[in-house]
This record gives sequence, structure tokens and C-alpha cells, in this order.
Amino acid sequence: VFFDLEGGLKLALWARDNIAYDSTLATSPPSATEFSIGHNVRTKQDVDAVMAQADAGGARIVKRAGTTFWGGYAGYSQDPDGHLWEVLWNPQFLPED
Amino acid sequence: VFFDLEGGLKLALWARDNIAYDSTLATSPPSATEFSIGHNVRTKQDVDAVMAQADAGGARIVKRAGTTFWGGYAGYSQDPDGHLWEVLWNPQFLPED
Repeated sequence: VFFDLEGGLKLALWARDNIAYDSTLATSPPSATEFSIGHNVRTKQDVDAVMAQADAGGARIVKRAGTTFWGGYAGYSQDPDGHLWEVLWNPQFLPED
Repeated sequence: VFFDLEGGLKLALWARDNIAYDSTLATSPPSATEFSIGHNVRTKQDVDAVMAQADAGGARIVKRAGTTFWGGYAGYSQDPDGHLWEVLWNPQFLPED
């Protein structure tokens, strides 16, 4: 599956076994701390809304949304494949409308 | 470290321990088959050039560049943190100049 992102970037999803096969690396157990995908939103309310969507869509809520030490508001969930997603409101780093 | 990509996207690097701490997940052993970063280039020669740069920069060459089953030309390396990078020429999927 390919998702078109902005600026010509694409997010492609593969089975872990296919990555191992294609690269010739051995498969290894999944590790959720390899990377996280940060989804920046424009308001704290949007953080709650996206976290609720993730929850309803079958994600595991890892850390409920709350105020962060860096002055933002964020929460974490894991998708059904174990990948870590952060939904965050960062007043210094708001996405375009 | 933050890298500005196109379209407002940013690539941020963190230590694995920081991701674990911030998300409250337990740390787990690194796994190179969680994701790979694909670097699309415009010619086969560019694949060789980028692979040579990676090699010179301390990457571990996992799979030397060669013709792929899907009609392209690609190779894989791992950076010093173990992350998997693919450099690829895909005639159906050339990056903007």
C-alpha cells in the first residue's frame, strides 16, 4: 500500500518478512521503539479527537493525551501492527491549516 | 536533531531510550526490519554514487546495488544505528529534478 504525502514523499507499507527478504536481513522480533510517527495537529482538542479515532479503530492506547514537559499536549498509541504513533499539539510547531 | 523535508514534514532523530521513556513503552532490542527509508534517485549511476557515499560514511552495505525483479536498480545499507536504507532507481517512480 502506498500513501502519497506532501512534497512527493510516499509512505509505503510492507510486511516485515518482505523487508527482510528483499534486504537479505534476518527477520527479528518487532520493536516498537525503533521509530514513531508524529501526527502534529493544530489544537489540544484535535489531539483528543485523533486519539479517540485511533482507539475506535483498534489501536492500543499506550499513553493517554496529557500536558507534556515541553509545553505541549500529546498521547501515544500503537497500531495493530505494533507501530508507535504520537498525536501532538506543539504550540511552536503547528501544521499548516 | 530535526531535518526539514519537503511539504512541512520533518524527520527527527531520538535515542531509542528516549522514545521508550516518553511513550512509557519498555525498551526492546533493535530490529532493522521495522522500517526502511527509501531514497529514490534519478539514475542507476546515482544509486551507485549514494551507496558509495554511505559506504564511505560508515554504513554497513547489506546488499550491493543490482537489478531488481521489479525492473529497477537498488541496494541496501544499514546506518551506524542499525536503521535500514534502500537507495533505488525506479523508472516508474523518479523523483523531481
